[in-house]
Amino acid sequence: MRAYNFSAGPAILPEEVLKEAQAELFDYQGTGMSLMEMSHRGKEYSAVHDETIANIKKLLNIPAGYSVLFMTGGASTQFALVPMNLLGAGQTADYTNSGAWASKAIQEAKLLGGKVNIAANCGKEIPTRVPSIDELKLTPGAAYLHITSNETISGAQWKVFPKHETLIADMSSDILSKPLDVSKFGLIYAGAQKNLGPAGVTLVIMKDELAERCPETVPTMFRYKTHIAENSLYNTVPTFPVYILCLVTRWLLAKGGLEGMQKQNAEKAAKLYAAIDGTGFYTGTAVKEYRSDMNVTFRLPSEALEDQFIAEASKLKLKSLKGHRSVGGIRASIYNAFPPAGVDVLISFMKEFEAKNG
Amino acid sequence: MRAYNFSAGPAILPEEVLKEAQAELFDYQGTGMSLMEMSHRGKEYSAVHDETIANIKKLLNIPAGYSVLFMTGGASTQFALVPMNLLGAGQTADYTNSGAWASKAIQEAKLLGGKVNIAANCGKEIPTRVPSIDELKLTPGAAYLHITSNETISGAQWKVFPKHETLIADMSSDILSKPLDVSKFGLIYAGAQKNLGPAGVTLVIMKDELAERCPETVPTMFRYKTHIAENSLYNTVPTFPVYILCLVTRWLLAKGGLEGMQKQNAEKAAKLYAAIDGTGFYTGTAVKEYRSDMNVTFRLPSEALEDQFIAEASKLKLKSLKGHRSVGGIRASIYNAFPPAGVDVLISFMKEFEAKNG
Repeated sequence: MRAYNFSAGPAILPEEVLKEAQAELFDYQGTGMSLMEMSHRGKEYSAVHDETIANIKKLLNIPAGYSVLFMTGGASTQFALVPMNLLGAGQTADYTNSGAWASKAIQEAKLLGGKVNIAANCGKEIPTRVPSIDELKLTPGAAYLHITSNETISGAQWKVFPKHETLIADMSSDILSKPLDVSKFGLIYAGAQKNLGPAGVTLVIMKDELAERCPETVPTMFRYKTHIAENSLYNTVPTFPVYILCLVTRWLLAKGGLEGMQKQNAEKAAKLYAAIDGTGFYTGTAVKEYRSDMNVTFRLPSEALEDQFIAEASKLKLKSLKGHRSVGGIRASIYNAFPPAGVDVLISFMKEFEAKNG
Repeated sequence: MRAYNFSAGPAILPEEVLKEAQAELFDYQGTGMSLMEMSHRGKEYSAVHDETIANIKKLLNIPAGYSVLFMTGGASTQFALVPMNLLGAGQTADYTNSGAWASKAIQEAKLLGGKVNIAANCGKEIPTRVPSIDELKLTPGAAYLHITSNETISGAQWKVFPKHETLIADMSSDILSKPLDVSKFGLIYAGAQKNLGPAGVTLVIMKDELAERCPETVPTMFRYKTHIAENSLYNTVPTFPVYILCLVTRWLLAKGGLEGMQKQNAEKAAKLYAAIDGTGFYTGTAVKEYRSDMNVTFRLPSEALEDQFIAEASKLKLKSLKGHRSVGGIRASIYNAFPPAGVDVLISFMKEFEAKNG
């Protein structure tokens, strides 16, 4: 029996994707080799590579002048690469602090010696939230404005994005969960292991002209312009993670694209939040207007009850509901691949658990 | 029918490893989830992570005071990380230039503004080779000496390593192909996609005390000491590539370890070089005493014949024999997982091809 996997990342993948990957793992399309064993410059992998880029451009309707890149090292590496490439000497970068992940991005920019302005700071507020657009204190002429579109740990999400000449977003946990106007962004990055594929590849979507800002002293692998110029094949790309990402993008296209996905995600989240709000036993962690459609966070009346909740849920194959180790509580991550039926099963369990322990 | 895959990397993996990965890809050990979908901090992946480290320590008999790390970005990223972490202001680093990969390592060290001394340069010699120990012109007090243990493109390999207080080696293409006295090295790094596993993880073996040299201005993800302190779990590690690496290390241990592997590798290479030398039709690319046991490179009398050779071999399921795009010729990469029977098939084909075209 397949588990209902609420893991925040690495996270659930579509059943169809896993079945296909399994079927062709040993012998890829009759070649007598696994795709894992093939050159990243050979015709089989090249087809996968190019299709994945094309599928992402199609899903997000990415305009001309932008590149889709496959990098490595996750968002944590991007936290450093963004200021290394884009924050010139003497310039200031604006960052919003919305919680744990935004804080890490800020920390790296400061470590590199750049001037960092915190345009808004609600990183430690409880209930959790992201900044509102009208509270942002922006620096005129800032090199860029950095936001974290969805805080996986706190379960808070930007619903409307601020406008900025160079808007940069860490979208690790909500990329491809809904349509997006990419033209409003200079740079978007996302570790794959939440909504895109397995751990090991980082998706970057970038306005090409921005990459030219990079100083010549930045190492070759750390320059966005290297990867733009080489179509992400300057060195060996993580071929198997990209292949799984390819299958996920095919699955999204077959499902009708991101509008349908957004609708389904909103419905899943609304049901779950309604179950939380319908009782005094469960308490949502995030301010209502900023609640994430991806990571639904809530508390029970005591930590002992939370432990019991997680343990009993696990026996029913409702897996990985434990909140992040830094904050505790319950977190149900319900990314694209999480089936609506699993949300219903969780809600039934929540009702039973409250009836017994409330 | 399984192909004989001579790809230089990503490269052939053991059949048993691929079969096992396939069998448990959809449902990992009855959990109802793929390992790809599981948290990098959960008990299933943790067991894989820790076993892989233990297996590598056992295979290489790694002494106390060293860490085994899983990083990303391949050797190309390590080219920058080595000087960023270990080349202090005002210090000089010694590099040996043995060809394409060594040259790239040198280029990054220079780009970072470090003082770089080329201790020996045979990077452009034909027939190809690596430096001999007695020609090295070392800098007294150098921060380190960097070598490339095996040049994948030219097919030349260090057979005896130079002695140095801080010896650093790019072992991407011959790591785990034979026993190694790790205590003679300060730092060893290797992209996985040749002898270890799939693309997407970089193995680093490092003397812990060296990591302390890193300046505080280096970004968190680019410091070796971050990954030592966090057991390579500072952020999400590429879990599936590490899992395949785990299966490869199990396969090596089940085969009896690296001594048997070295013997088999030497026998495969000796047979193939004997076939090359037994005729005037084929010409080895590397100087005999430096010939690689991993990448056997040779030429035919003309490029037209080389193209014909590659095309006809491919029809017999002898795949990926084309030399690197920068040098041409023939390259047969025969890593650990390449079966001895495949070498025999190649040799038979070489004889037939010469008989028809010689």
